[in-house]
Amino acid sequence: MLEELDEAECLRLIASGGIGRIGYSGRYGPTVMPVNYQLYEGTIVFRTTPDSTTDEDLRTGIANAEYKVAFEIDDFNTAARTGWSVLIQGSAHHVESEAERASVAGAGVDPWPGGGRELFLRIMPSRVTGRRVSHTS
Amino acid sequence: MLEELDEAECLRLIASGGIGRIGYSGRYGPTVMPVNYQLYEGTIVFRTTPDSTTDEDLRTGIANAEYKVAFEIDDFNTAARTGWSVLIQGSAHHVESEAERASVAGAGVDPWPGGGRELFLRIMPSRVTGRRVSHTS
Repeated sequence: MLEELDEAECLRLIASGGIGRIGYSGRYGPTVMPVNYQLYEGTIVFRTTPDSTTDEDLRTGIANAEYKVAFEIDDFNTAARTGWSVLIQGSAHHVESEAERASVAGAGVDPWPGGGRELFLRIMPSRVTGRRVSHTS
Repeated sequence: MLEELDEAECLRLIASGGIGRIGYSGRYGPTVMPVNYQLYEGTIVFRTTPDSTTDEDLRTGIANAEYKVAFEIDDFNTAARTGWSVLIQGSAHHVESEAERASVAGAGVDPWPGGGRELFLRIMPSRVTGRRVSHTS
């Protein structure tokens, strides 16, 4: 009833973008926050607010080259008890060069809360895993 | 358009249980996994499989008294671009004593994939924060 998904299937499932959740080590320990993301050239792109807690925590972390983050996307049908989840683990960076910024801006990442989320972050996956739950009884 | 929620409102929003996502530091770095949870006496209760990767990673972590985990619950309406999220941060432990096991078993946590998820874990919140996004334009 629990099936492991291969990387190609994981990337197919998350290709449409939407709500995902970034997991990282922050000032209060492990932190998980939902963001609106796009999959862009095999990477996760999302936006946040400069000088927000998330921005500051990630900036502090990313200063360490070993810093990793997680990104989780899922879709469950609670009535049927079926669904899937994908977990991406990798490094993150702020999109700061003009060239990369122009490139990822084309991904069309549109933060729901609007206003001022001018900072693009990008996660480069080093590990992509997923699982599907199907209800058989 | 982004409103901070107080702890009482957060606990009210997550009281019905359902799908939440545990965030923790594991063998591959930050990890976020969906689980079916219940809120029980102000704590998060969920089940996992003994000797699974999640169990082993959490067991390794919990051996350190400073180890913290995150637990995120959200509900978004993607069409309306509205929704809320709650983040719980705190310590976790395996429910191992007979007395505590009998107690949390009453929470009725029912893992979707079924079969063998005999291990109860419990998160004791030390920090509860939440936010609501409302679309006004």
